[in-house]
Amino acid sequence: MEFGVYTFGDLVTDPHTGTTISAHTRMLQVLDLARKAEASGLDVIGVGEHHGEEFVNSATAIMLTAMASVTSSIRLTSAATLLSTADPVRTYQEFATADLISNGRIELMFGRGAYTDNFPLFGYELTDYDALFLEKLHLFQLLNSQDRVSWSGQFRPPLVDAPIAPRALQPQLPVCIGAVSPASVKRTAEMGYPISIPVLDGKLETYVELATIYKETWRTCGYNETEESISFYGHMYLSEKLEDTYSSFFPNYQNYRLPWTKNRLSRIEFDRLIAPDGALLVGTPEMVAEKISYLRLQTGAKRFVGQIDIGAQTEQIVHRSVELLGTNVRALVNEKCRF
Amino acid sequence: MEFGVYTFGDLVTDPHTGTTISAHTRMLQVLDLARKAEASGLDVIGVGEHHGEEFVNSATAIMLTAMASVTSSIRLTSAATLLSTADPVRTYQEFATADLISNGRIELMFGRGAYTDNFPLFGYELTDYDALFLEKLHLFQLLNSQDRVSWSGQFRPPLVDAPIAPRALQPQLPVCIGAVSPASVKRTAEMGYPISIPVLDGKLETYVELATIYKETWRTCGYNETEESISFYGHMYLSEKLEDTYSSFFPNYQNYRLPWTKNRLSRIEFDRLIAPDGALLVGTPEMVAEKISYLRLQTGAKRFVGQIDIGAQTEQIVHRSVELLGTNVRALVNEKCRF
Repeated sequence: MEFGVYTFGDLVTDPHTGTTISAHTRMLQVLDLARKAEASGLDVIGVGEHHGEEFVNSATAIMLTAMASVTSSIRLTSAATLLSTADPVRTYQEFATADLISNGRIELMFGRGAYTDNFPLFGYELTDYDALFLEKLHLFQLLNSQDRVSWSGQFRPPLVDAPIAPRALQPQLPVCIGAVSPASVKRTAEMGYPISIPVLDGKLETYVELATIYKETWRTCGYNETEESISFYGHMYLSEKLEDTYSSFFPNYQNYRLPWTKNRLSRIEFDRLIAPDGALLVGTPEMVAEKISYLRLQTGAKRFVGQIDIGAQTEQIVHRSVELLGTNVRALVNEKCRF
Repeated sequence: MEFGVYTFGDLVTDPHTGTTISAHTRMLQVLDLARKAEASGLDVIGVGEHHGEEFVNSATAIMLTAMASVTSSIRLTSAATLLSTADPVRTYQEFATADLISNGRIELMFGRGAYTDNFPLFGYELTDYDALFLEKLHLFQLLNSQDRVSWSGQFRPPLVDAPIAPRALQPQLPVCIGAVSPASVKRTAEMGYPISIPVLDGKLETYVELATIYKETWRTCGYNETEESISFYGHMYLSEKLEDTYSSFFPNYQNYRLPWTKNRLSRIEFDRLIAPDGALLVGTPEMVAEKISYLRLQTGAKRFVGQIDIGAQTEQIVHRSVELLGTNVRALVNEKCRF
């Protein structure tokens, strides 16, 4: 199984100190995270796209390029790219450029994202979301597989035998789709794309059910079972001592979730989420490895990627979580799963 | 005076070997050029934007970010960014991100570019060039100076108190305009922008005349003379032995110019261009320093930037030119100008 981390470069106020670091310091932290992830033996690092003041990244291919420049082998993925409000031509050009610079380590995840700031910013209607996503996904597939593209559609000017340059180093940039509603999970399988499922709330078994929908649809459609591909993404914190989860992480996580869920996370809800059947990958390496092993054994998932640098935790604490993921959690999962 | 180099990452066939290197190899060469430029004491490196198969760069902020990651002090500029066919919001976000990563070393040049592939590719009409450029330049100025922007125009959906993030590390990203027709030079001065003049063809004195138009307009408009800012950009090759200019560089330069001028450059034309009154900055350090000193003394130009890695020359030859620019040419110009 592959393990990784992803970041949104969130700019949250640290509840322990009351301070908020600058976008510049946060950017340097994110590059440190990439170095640390590679040094800890992780397989992949991801970056999410946001367009508000609470996050430092709105230009994912640039951050992945910077990460590529301070690492040598870790794979680099968007998590996710908000394709619906982007121009797929620019998106291909940008990630192909990053692929050349990184010696072929780039991947893309396309998805809707947790926020919708990008719709008004780029002049799109949220009601067009599905039509935008499907049209642009199809166009990206053409751009990704042909040096010259002819195409016309509803949301972008047509292309007439247009050269698309530069070409990526990889024959095609690997693409997966981030999806979490049963309908979008099913559609992802129907279209034959690898899936990344965000595991963020509620019960863990819900995500096994989603993966089951994906797998059943994949088989119904007659796709090759060996090409089926499921990844899980989720908030993560690791510490040898369980009490640190409450004293150190919990206040950070409350601050992180506030703009997203609008309600302040209570201790009771937090306890439900970190319980053995809860969806939050937070606690000791043993607790978290148990959950990842469950997901792996139930679904055959190939990759787990944790958002580990959230809520203004110190770099020291974040890097310790990264180390525990790369060593203890990986070893425990490999032992439990043995396949 | 500041000295620098710029590159388009051209993918020209080497006339000496008949081979064309891959986009991947060219990308690595461009990063080597950035390292070499900084090591040779140059002040700035620039990257041009193109959208055809003959060039490796269509995503300038990404290449500048990669260059930032392998250098520590050299300034990094677009040369130029094709703003007319871009979304200024994305452009600001991308270069602000690069500015954070490079610790505040990013600059932008906006211009039309020598090719027009970008117009059909992004669905714009070349006949709208001026209207596009002026509207987007104005919007960029707002984005560059305000954290939240309200705006409406003809060529992009409106912005309503939109947060523009992340913010650059520099208080504002430095912006200049590339211009070479008398009308666009005059307009640049009227708008109060620094100017970059490409010195590519004909007689050197033509470019002094253009700079004079800029300076006179600047003063007529009542702008502060100390803020007047002229840079020159041009094709460049340097070698201690003049015969190398003919045996080594000339065939490369013929290949490089072909798609741009459509006619194969003759030896007679080449001789005219490298003559003391010709516009080409090619020859021995003494010949080239004489021309740069002339431009500097006649116009007070603050920066000269040479496109030195053109036409599939070997890295060894390119790097020798870079060294000669950073050492011999700089020393000769400083001696001749003494101000």
